[in-house]
Formats: sequence, structure tokens, C-alpha cells
Amino acid sequence: MIRSGQHFLQIPGPSPIPERILRAIGTQVIDHRGPKFQNLGHEVLEGCQFAFKTAAPVVIYPSSGTGAWEAAIVNTLSAGDKVLMVETGHFATLWRQMAARLGVDVEFISGDWRHGVDAARINESLSADRAKAIKAVMVVHNETSTGVTSDIAAVRQAIDQAAHPALLMVDAISSLGSIDYRHDDWGVDVTVSCSQKGLMLPPGLGFNAISAKAQAASRSNGLRRSYWDWNEMLKPNSSGFFPYTPATNLLYGLREALAMLREEGLDAVFARHKRLAAATRAAVRAWGLEILCLNPEEYSPVLTAVLMPEGYDADQLRKVVLDIGDMSLGAGLAQLTGKVFRIGHLGGCSELTLMGALSGVELGLAAAGIPHRPGGILAALEELKTPGKPDACPAVPGTSAHA
Amino acid sequence: MIRSGQHFLQIPGPSPIPERILRAIGTQVIDHRGPKFQNLGHEVLEGCQFAFKTAAPVVIYPSSGTGAWEAAIVNTLSAGDKVLMVETGHFATLWRQMAARLGVDVEFISGDWRHGVDAARINESLSADRAKAIKAVMVVHNETSTGVTSDIAAVRQAIDQAAHPALLMVDAISSLGSIDYRHDDWGVDVTVSCSQKGLMLPPGLGFNAISAKAQAASRSNGLRRSYWDWNEMLKPNSSGFFPYTPATNLLYGLREALAMLREEGLDAVFARHKRLAAATRAAVRAWGLEILCLNPEEYSPVLTAVLMPEGYDADQLRKVVLDIGDMSLGAGLAQLTGKVFRIGHLGGCSELTLMGALSGVELGLAAAGIPHRPGGILAALEELKTPGKPDACPAVPGTSAHA
Amino acid sequence: MIRSGQHFLQIPGPSPIPERILRAIGTQVIDHRGPKFQNLGHEVLEGCQFAFKTAAPVVIYPSSGTGAWEAAIVNTLSAGDKVLMVETGHFATLWRQMAARLGVDVEFISGDWRHGVDAARINESLSADRAKAIKAVMVVHNETSTGVTSDIAAVRQAIDQAAHPALLMVDAISSLGSIDYRHDDWGVDVTVSCSQKGLMLPPGLGFNAISAKAQAASRSNGLRRSYWDWNEMLKPNSSGFFPYTPATNLLYGLREALAMLREEGLDAVFARHKRLAAATRAAVRAWGLEILCLNPEEYSPVLTAVLMPEGYDADQLRKVVLDIGDMSLGAGLAQLTGKVFRIGHLGGCSELTLMGALSGVELGLAAAGIPHRPGGILAALEELKTPGKPDACPAVPGTSAHA
Amino acid sequence: MIRSGQHFLQIPGPSPIPERILRAIGTQVIDHRGPKFQNLGHEVLEGCQFAFKTAAPVVIYPSSGTGAWEAAIVNTLSAGDKVLMVETGHFATLWRQMAARLGVDVEFISGDWRHGVDAARINESLSADRAKAIKAVMVVHNETSTGVTSDIAAVRQAIDQAAHPALLMVDAISSLGSIDYRHDDWGVDVTVSCSQKGLMLPPGLGFNAISAKAQAASRSNGLRRSYWDWNEMLKPNSSGFFPYTPATNLLYGLREALAMLREEGLDAVFARHKRLAAATRAAVRAWGLEILCLNPEEYSPVLTAVLMPEGYDADQLRKVVLDIGDMSLGAGLAQLTGKVFRIGHLGGCSELTLMGALSGVELGLAAAGIPHRPGGILAALEELKTPGKPDACPAVPGTSAHA
Repeated sequence: MIRSGQHFLQIPGPSPIPERILRAIGTQVIDHRGPKFQNLGHEVLEGCQFAFKTAAPVVIYPSSGTGAWEAAIVNTLSAGDKVLMVETGHFATLWRQMAARLGVDVEFISGDWRHGVDAARINESLSADRAKAIKAVMVVHNETSTGVTSDIAAVRQAIDQAAHPALLMVDAISSLGSIDYRHDDWGVDVTVSCSQKGLMLPPGLGFNAISAKAQAASRSNGLRRSYWDWNEMLKPNSSGFFPYTPATNLLYGLREALAMLREEGLDAVFARHKRLAAATRAAVRAWGLEILCLNPEEYSPVLTAVLMPEGYDADQLRKVVLDIGDMSLGAGLAQLTGKVFRIGHLGGCSELTLMGALSGVELGLAAAGIPHRPGGILAALEELKTPGKPDACPAVPGTSAHA
Repeated sequence: MIRSGQHFLQIPGPSPIPERILRAIGTQVIDHRGPKFQNLGHEVLEGCQFAFKTAAPVVIYPSSGTGAWEAAIVNTLSAGDKVLMVETGHFATLWRQMAARLGVDVEFISGDWRHGVDAARINESLSADRAKAIKAVMVVHNETSTGVTSDIAAVRQAIDQAAHPALLMVDAISSLGSIDYRHDDWGVDVTVSCSQKGLMLPPGLGFNAISAKAQAASRSNGLRRSYWDWNEMLKPNSSGFFPYTPATNLLYGLREALAMLREEGLDAVFARHKRLAAATRAAVRAWGLEILCLNPEEYSPVLTAVLMPEGYDADQLRKVVLDIGDMSLGAGLAQLTGKVFRIGHLGGCSELTLMGALSGVELGLAAAGIPHRPGGILAALEELKTPGKPDACPAVPGTSAHA
Repeated sequence: MIRSGQHFLQIPGPSPIPERILRAIGTQVIDHRGPKFQNLGHEVLEGCQFAFKTAAPVVIYPSSGTGAWEAAIVNTLSAGDKVLMVETGHFATLWRQMAARLGVDVEFISGDWRHGVDAARINESLSADRAKAIKAVMVVHNETSTGVTSDIAAVRQAIDQAAHPALLMVDAISSLGSIDYRHDDWGVDVTVSCSQKGLMLPPGLGFNAISAKAQAASRSNGLRRSYWDWNEMLKPNSSGFFPYTPATNLLYGLREALAMLREEGLDAVFARHKRLAAATRAAVRAWGLEILCLNPEEYSPVLTAVLMPEGYDADQLRKVVLDIGDMSLGAGLAQLTGKVFRIGHLGGCSELTLMGALSGVELGLAAAGIPHRPGGILAALEELKTPGKPDACPAVPGTSAHA
Repeated sequence: MIRSGQHFLQIPGPSPIPERILRAIGTQVIDHRGPKFQNLGHEVLEGCQFAFKTAAPVVIYPSSGTGAWEAAIVNTLSAGDKVLMVETGHFATLWRQMAARLGVDVEFISGDWRHGVDAARINESLSADRAKAIKAVMVVHNETSTGVTSDIAAVRQAIDQAAHPALLMVDAISSLGSIDYRHDDWGVDVTVSCSQKGLMLPPGLGFNAISAKAQAASRSNGLRRSYWDWNEMLKPNSSGFFPYTPATNLLYGLREALAMLREEGLDAVFARHKRLAAATRAAVRAWGLEILCLNPEEYSPVLTAVLMPEGYDADQLRKVVLDIGDMSLGAGLAQLTGKVFRIGHLGGCSELTLMGALSGVELGLAAAGIPHRPGGILAALEELKTPGKPDACPAVPGTSAHA
């Protein structure tokens, strides 16, 4: 069916690309070895430091986020190295599988896909590791498959309390630019991210922010690597260039995205995401549906995963919503297939767009015959009128308590 | 304040420009005397006939709709000529003032800005005009200042019943491409329109569809004219060209807009507009506010003008809505200033975008302290779930009865 | 035939639109009555004063340049008013025809289409006009049909020496932004221009810069008018708005174009145009072809019209050039049809683009079997190596001598 | 310095992006798991088969061409595997270094960077390899650092004559879409390419076309891999999807690029590249400069590397050309630094653009005081008038002789 108007892209990434960024990436390419590119290179490399809240270098790959996952591993770990990971959901599981495929020995703390990282269990494992065999703790900040945000500061604290030398490697793929993220303050060694979430860009760029400790590790360890090698990147980066042809047009978009984040202000961006998430949860509760995330301190500001009533298929609902509302919702992944749908409210999402999106969900619930109470959108609107009520997810869940 | 996300442009024109059209107008210009342009010229000129439902020529001016108003007058009327016009609202009044400034003698049937054209009164005036001094009946199809749509078929009938030779000239500025409009079937002599409403283009193109009778009138009558002269246009148009440099990039957009109307189908486009309008009215009623248009048969599918409660300023509300919701609503014009606000739901507007817009209005009503009942958005959603209830505005109000 | 690469648009307008401007016009439209538009309005209205070198207001019409011609006439002249015009070429002739159609009585100083305005003959006519019946002197600054630039300062002087009160109205359609133009210094009363030449925009905007004297004339004289009425424009313009919906997206482009002119600097822009024109003439001479313009002081920096050898058809050559070189050249117009072709070198044209264009002409001359000496491009290149040789057309032809 | 007009990007990639492709990549992103994406996926995957002339699958990575090099290696080779490579220039050397870093044992046939692959020496090495220890022959089709094109059909023949089972892996990075390339006909097992050369896209996509033999090898061999793993790609690709988020906006561009290649026709595209290359060489010879490539059968249709006269610095010339002509030329790389400059004439380059570019070189030679004979551009133009003279580089050098 031909639809008028604008598609509502409410998956948890790629997020809709703002017009300014679309125009930027649609600009003629330039010589990647010339002076104009050099300025661009410096700008985006420094801008990334702002976004990651770090003074350490950030390398930018022409790759998906998956590539940036791989880069984090192959630069720091050697075959047979042991790492500690936590099963927060599908993406944590995929990262673990990748590590295993690359020869890394993963201790995987199991989880129910409805909670974030339990820092106490990390402390336990590290404390038990007398031989300091664990080379890295690898966790996902915002688990995109479940809508659960973990407390990275608490993980840092757990490592420190165990006085363990493991690197801390964090997947900030769907949190960067949407949820407060602090590479330096939290003592993260490698932060992995990509372009198509909070940065509002098309997919195609992967990032690694790299602490001095991680850089040191990369010089003495690491798997065979070439494309992903940090050291190959860092040298030309210091003068604004790249070792191989960079994805110039996406870098144009990155420059624009960073400018937009600065203009709105990171704190305002993070507050907006929390506001939209709280409104979404208000709608979900009013519909009588269940939020997948069980711990209010871990509610994701980026997306909300919603459980279907027993016996109803989330993918069928998503199809109806696409047909009647011209809106894309996120599917349940792996063991959650058909059981949840995910509402993305990240990137450039505004209050009114969210209300349109929630209206589309409510229309879809009715059209698909899913048992629910009408009126979720009204509850969401009430929340937007008076934001900041108790259950609103804190930007950094638990930071106040832990820090 | 820097806002994230997309501005909601819910004024009754310009309507938001679809991405496809934006890309089209951002394409490199070509030689307006070359073969590539010729193809473009033929395409858009024929496409306009489809949009106006006419086999007669449509001329395209680089101008606003105001220019197309002037073109209609100067090509057909001479100084001192008498015409019959109807005070449906601000735009009818402006067209009348223009006619007067150009030396035309206007009989202006007064109105309350809450009703459409009363065909009976037109019949009366024409019947009384034994000398056939009235050269033209000039009416506005969809009065953009009030949200009232008039029944053009009934006006045609009124003229025919009076057996009067007056030309019928219709302003279809905000109806074309949004409300069923039939230049040929309704025996319209000159239809005036422009680009930035139902055609979803930027402002900058004005149109005149011209019957054979109007063409004949232009050859023997008319005010001094050059830029607006139809005959200068029609000759080069027949081979796809224009007498002076056309607004090529807007014509690229027009080609795309016409393609989009064909793809969705005009009937589907019109039905969508009615559905959105009915939902909007459901919200307004649920809020306990009053719709300006008093006759349900004349509700506009294009926009809804809403009366403020006594003592409250619509422009203050609009300011609040712009600030907190990043949405532009239409102001009350002239005698309606501050008394009404107008919600545009035309062009590429979709159900979800409308729900976002109505949510913005409800947020604004609350934030501005306007007395209202919450829940309008829920009433709108209900309407969208079950469209087609009794009060829904018919595409061509009254056609079934009259035709 | 499908062609790779970029079309060479070397007609004397529309000139190729720079990428920055294309992106600007392809930006979402905004509320033309909101605060964001107001900023835009102020910016472009002030920017136009910079481009016209005037402190007087400049009004901007959604129209072609032809519309701006009409605006100049209908605001200042009444039916039967006498004006003095000069036959510099096709466009001067068209403007004269328009004036006549609008009821103005034109004294037309005849010309051979190979020279500019003869200020002495203007002085003669005005001196002979004891009754001061001549209300306006109307001349074309850069005659786009011939490539001849007239000395407006000399025309001003001629009027002053005759102590004649006539208004001076100048068509700067193809000179603005390409050739030094000074509305205030030259005492011009109405300057007419448009968007698609030196301003590098798509067609669709017309301009009138209006002296206080012209404004005064418009209050007491003028033809019946509405759309073109200056006074209707000037009032809302003073607060950044327009009386009817402006061509917002073209105004976005105008803002960008004005920024580009400021960045390069008007003097640099004018010098570049002269350099490119000199190189073009060097090529033409080397080919053994004749430049239409006979007076080196009047060579146009904007375009060069080239005479075909006797018995050869310029339009045939243009067709060959389009086919084999994917380049559009300007046709000879009216009495010059088939006799000349015109090479545009205006707007954003650079040295290398010009060399590509001249190469296309030389390829075309060979392919079409036009008698010529090969090597024109080498002569052009020599000129570009050492610009500033004697015959280079001064920015303001003859100013130094006359002023 | 602010420059007017369009930058001439005449490096051997990225090549200038056509407007159609820029618009395509600037289009809103879609759900990479939805039905609309699925259509896109099928289209580009099939389109790549057309471009590579293969019925085998082509995988598309979000990566640079360097990533696609790595993918070819890690999917087919194991640590310690022996391969045969040929030193055609800088990029062959870099690929060899990558292979070595990844643990592959490279036999590197040395070269002078002025010739292509000597098939006889490949035959020799393979014939000497009785143990069939060599797992792959890896060569560069068009060596971007030197402007030398190798005869891949002859390499195939050399392998066949030696009855050797080695895989044939070819870098077609700068040849695909510019020089006739036949994955299937030439029995290539892995073809490596990327987006920013003949495909006229921005950088950011890497390709591997994979024969059945290579697929089989990848199932039993290969280095540890995850991101680059073909098998992970091929399964979802078969239904139009990707295993991780693809670079959707670049795929939009790819769809458009493939459409453009089909419209012009691959044979026409290849012939155009040869024509432009011949014209470039004519200019170089007329200037009295030396072409780096020594064998006329191996002249590259994609770029021409030009040797500087002894004692003159190519980078200084490039700087002058950038300053005065706003043109980017390719630098000499590694051992050729400062000794050659490279003129790219690939992708969407047209005759007129090339003439502009060569004019820029000639201007630069003069301005930089490089000894040369003026008039190169005239020689180039002559070549364009009468293409097809003896030395023109055949699309597939030597094919007629060898096949």
C-alpha cells in the first residue's frame, strides 16, 4: 500500500535521521588526503571525545557496531584469554559468541533478560579470580534487546573493590548520545559504539574509545589483526587523517550530529530521553501490558520492551501496526521472538512524535485484537504534562546510591 | 530553545514537504529551452489536468496563490465589470479587495465566517440581474481562514437555474489535492490554486485552470496585463515550454507531487483527509471546545478552526504550543485574530502525525491554562479506529443531494 | 543518450546551482508567520541591500524576472506616461513591448544589438524634452541576448546633465552578483533583477530595489496593481514578513547565495567574471570567429555571444554540442536566431569549468564542420595564465573615464 | 581561499559522486529488518552480480576496501598458508603486508611499479610448486598507485597451464565499474572491491565476490573471524537481509549506482574510460612528461600517473593546482612520493570535465614553473575528436592475444 506522510521509525535504532544530517551526508565527497579533510578529521575525532566524555582517543571505523565489538576484542585479547561477561540479553549473548569464535574463553554470568548487570556477581567472580586470569570484564550498558540499562559506575566499583586488573570494556552502542555515558569518570577501558542510535546517523560507523591502559594492552597482546588495529589508526588520526579511506560522507553526518548534541546540550538530551521513556511506560501500564524490564532503576531511556499477553504474537501486532499506522516497531529477538515488541524513543525523538508513535501502538492493539485497556496515550500525555515522577528512570541508574 | 526532532508544521499551508519532493526540488537546474525541459513541461502541464480533473489547459505561474487570483481577474474582467462574490471568510474578503483595487465592481454577499456559500443567495442575485451585468461569480471552495468548505456543484446549479452567463471562478487554493475538486464536471471557468497546500510543494507556483469560455472572455476582455496573460502562456505551453523562465526546481517538485497523488490515488487522498478531519473534530468536541464551522455538511477536510473559550487568547496558546511542543498552528486572521486557532491536517499528513499534533494541542491547552476537558486525543483515536461515523464531512458536501 | 558525468550548463542563466544552495532549498518549509521565518526574512532583505549596494528597500517577489519588470512599471507609471528606452537587444525589446502592453508610451532609441546604451543619445532626448514629459529612462545593464554591458553611471550622468527629473530604471537581471552594480552610487531609482543568474539560485524570485524617489512616485502614480504593489510589500517587510505566502525554499537558497557572495567577496566575484570572459574571448578570436559585441569597453563579463560564419546555423552547432559534449549553450534570440550562440560564464563558474566548456565548443565546432582554427582553448588558457591584459572588460565599463 | 564553483576531484578515488547518488544516500533510513529493506537487499545483491559479471554471491560489508581485502584473506587462508603475490605497486604491497600480519606466508614477485603482473612468472612459480603448497594467487587488477592494469585472463591462463589448484584472488578495487571485469569468465575465486571508485559512491562499502571453490575453502580453512565471515553473511543475504545492521544509506546509493551503470551500459562505460585515458596520455606526451606505466598494453583507463621532471616535486605541483585551480590530484605514494602525480579519470568523469581537469594541470605546470611544452590540452582535444588511435588502452589488455 502506498502511504502518505512520514514513516514512523520507532525501532531502537537505526533512529530517524534528522534533516540536517541527511543533507550533510548528501554532500559531495572530498579528497581524504587534503587539507579540507584534515579539518573534518580533527573536528569529528575531537567531537567524539566530547560525546564519550573522554580525553582518550576515539577511533572511528567504517563498520557496523559489530565491527567495533570485534575491534575491542582483537586489540586487547589473545587467544585463550579469559573474560567475564554478563547475559543481559541478546546483544550481550552475541558479543559473547563473537568472543568465543575469536578464541576467547568467556565466563558468562547467566541472566533472565529482564535485569541489568549485577555488580555484586562481578565482584564475586573477580574476587574469586586469585590468579587474575580474567583479562577483561565486558558488559552492555543499554541492552537493546530488552530495554534494560546497567549501572556501569557500579561495575567499575565492583572491579575496584576486588582490586582486579581486568580491563573494563563496555558496549555503549545504544546508549551513547541518549543516556549519560562517562568513559573517563567510570574508568572504562574500551567503549564500543556506533552511528545509528543516539548519534542519529545512518549505520556505517563503529567507534572504540580507548583508555591508556587498553592502549598498553593492545601493544603487548591482541589477536592477529590489521583492519581493526588501533595503532594503525592512532598515528594518522593524530594529524586528522585515517590509515585507509574513511567513510567521508558519514563523517560529514557525524560532524553535524555532534554539533546538534552540543546545541541541545547533552544534559537536555538525556533528560528528554528519560521523559519520553517515562511517558511510554505510563502508556504501557495503562494498556495493562507488562514492561519487560523488572527493575525500575534499570528502565531504559532508549527503548521500552513490552511483553505480549500470553497467546498473542508480537510479530503479528508489528505487522498490523506497519500496515495501518505505517510505523516500524522493534521485534523480540532470539528467545523473545514473538513475545515482546520494542518501542524505540531515542535519537531525535520528540514528545509529539512519541505521542504519534504510542497512538500507533494503541491503534494496532485494537486492530490486532490484543486484550488491553484503551487510554494508554492519555496516561502518556499526563506523564509529559508532569514529568519527573518517582519511577522515572535516572539517567545513570543507581549512580546517586553507588557513587 | 534548540529542539530535537522534527517540527510539527500543522498550519493550513504550507503543508510539510515530503522527502521525495524536497529531494526533487534540490536537483540541479536545466536549460529551460532544451529537450529535457520540454519533457518536464509536458509532464507537469498534463499532470495538472489530472489534479484539476479537467481537459482544459492549466497555466502555471512562478507566483504565490495571490498572483493566481490576480491572473484570474485580469484575464477575464475589465475595469467596471460587475462580479458576485461571497464573504466566506478572510481569504474571500482579500480576493474581493484585490478585485476592487483592480477596478472591478464587486457585489459582496455578506457572511458570518462560519458558513460556506449559500447557493440560494447566488441564484437570487443572478436572477435579479436581468441585464446580465454580472460577469462572474467568484467563490472560495475551501475557506482557509475558517475551515468551511463550500459546495461548488450547488453554485454551478444556482447559476444554471438562473440561466445566467456569468463565468464561475473558484479559489481552490487549499482544496486542490485534498478535497475532491472537479473543474470540468462542475463547469468551473477559472480555477485558482497554488503549490503549498494539497500539492505538498513549497510556495512559489500559482495555477489557473481555464475553460474554453474563460479563454474566449480573455480574448475580448480583461485588464491590461502582461505577466499574467494567458494567451502568452498557452502558446509556448502547447510545446512544453514557457514564455519566460519558469521556476524549474519547483516544477521538479510538482512532477513528483503529481506522481505521489497518482500512486496513492486521488480518492484515497480525499478519504484520508476526511478521516483526519473527523478525528480532529472528535478531539475538539471532547475538549469541550467549539468548532468554528457551524454546518456539519461544510466541515473542511483540510483544516479545523477552533474557537477559544471567552477571555482566552488563541495566539497565546499558539505560542505555548510552539514553545513546549515545537508545533506551529494557524492563527486566527482578521476579525478572528486571537479568537480561533487553526489545525492543519492536509497534504501528506498521516494518522500518526495527526495524533502527535493533537497531543501537542492538548499539552498546550493544559500548559496555557485553557479550560478544557482532557482526553481529546482519545476521542480522536476512537474516531480513527472506526472512521465513517455520521458527522464525517463528505468529500463534496451536498453533492449527492444536488447531483 | 544516457550520459555520464555532469551536464555543462553554460547558458547565460539559469546558471548552475551550487551544491550548498541546492541543499538549502531542499530544506523543510516553515511557518511563514513564525519567529524563525522572521529571522530569515530580515536576513534576506538586508542581504539584498548588500547585493544591490543600496540602503533603499529591496522587495522580493515570487516571480520570474519578467514579473519584476512588470512591477517596476506598474508601480511608477500611469497609462499614457512617456518613457525613454534603448534597443540594446532582445530583452530591451521585450521590456519595451511589455511597457507598451501596459499602456506606456515608449520612445525607443534604436540600436544594432551590438552596442550598449549610448548615453549621449539619452542626453539628447531628455534635453529635447522641455515639457519633462518623459517619466522614466529604462535601460538594460547587461543585455543577455548580446553580451553587451552598458555604462549605467554614464546614463545617470546624461540624465543629470539634462537636469531631467525622469526616474532611472535599470534591468540588472543578468548583471547582479556578476558585474559591479551600484544602485545608490549610480542614482538608480528602480533596479530589476531575479534569482537565476549571478545569484546562482533556481528561477522563481524577482527583485525591485526602490529609491525614495521611486517610492514617492508609486504613491501618486502607477497602474492598477495588487500583487506587484510595493507599498503592500514594504510594510510587512519592515518586520521581516511578506504580505502573501513567500517562496520560502527559494529564500533559503537566497540566504545561502548571499552568504557565498560575502565569503568570496563581491570584488573577487566581479574580477573572476572578467577573467573568465577575457579567456572566452581569447578562445573565440583564436577560432577565427567574431564576437557579437563591437565595443571592447562593453564586453560582458557574464556571457559572450559569438557570430557564426555566414551560412552556418548556430542552433545546429548547439545541438551537436549538446549531443557530443552534454553541454547547453544559449541560443541566438529573435533576429539573432541561428546567427549567434551564447556562452554563459556566470554565477559559480570557475576557471576549470570554463575550460571544459570551451573545450566542448571546440569539439562541437569540429564535429559540426564549422570553419574555424583549432586551438581556441589554448588561447583561453594563456589568458588565464596572465589575466589583466588590455582588452579585458572593466567591471564597470567606462566608469573611470566618465566618473 | 574561498572558491566559487565546483571543486575538481581528480584523484583516483573517491571519484565525484553524481547528484542522483548523493540524493539517494541522503534519504531517510528504514528498518533493516522490514519488507522495504528486503527489496533493497535483493536489488543490490543481484545488482552486484551484474557489476562483477558473476552468478556467484557477492557479499557487501560496511567497511573500506581494506576491510574487503582482509575478508578475502581470513575466509580462505589459515595461518602459515603460502600465497603468491606480485609487486605491482603500493597497493599490492599493502595487501601483502596485511597478509603477512595475518600470518600468511607470502611469496612476493618483485616488480618495478611500472608494469603489471607478468603471467609467465606466475606460471613459473606455480609450476615449481610441486607440493601445491601455494593456496592462492593474489593480484591487483588495476594498480591505483601506478596506473597500470594487469591482464587477469592471462593470470588465469597461467594458473591453468600449471594445473595448479591455487585460488585466484583479485583486487578489483579501482577497476570495477570502470574497466571490463569478469569474475566468472576469468575464473576468479575472490574478487575484492569497494564503493568509491567506478561505482561512484562514497567510501564505506567493501565487496567480496566469491566462487563456489572459495566458499568451499572458507568452510574448511580460514583464520579466526567473525565480522568478515562469509557464511554468516550468505545465509541472511539469501532472503535479502544482513547479519548485522547494514549501511543502509550507502546501499541506497549502490542501488542508484547500479541503475546508472545499466542505463549507460557497461560497454559504453568502459569505452568512455578508455577514451578519457587516451586523451590524458595525449596531453601528458604533448607536455613532454613521462607516463609512469611503461607498457602501452597496460595503460590504465582509470588513472594516469605522470612522472615529474628530475628535481621537481609533484606534491608542490599538486599544492599549486589545488590553490589556483581548486582541483585535487592524486599524490605519489610510498617510493613514488613527490615523483609522480596521478590524474583520476574514472567514475562519472565526462569529456568536458576531463578537459577542465587537464587545463588545470597545464595551468599548474606553468604556475609551478615545471618544465613542459604548453599545448597538452590541445593534444587531448584532438584525441577526443578522433578516438580509437593505436595506443588506446584495450579494455582488457592483451585479452585478444592471450585468449
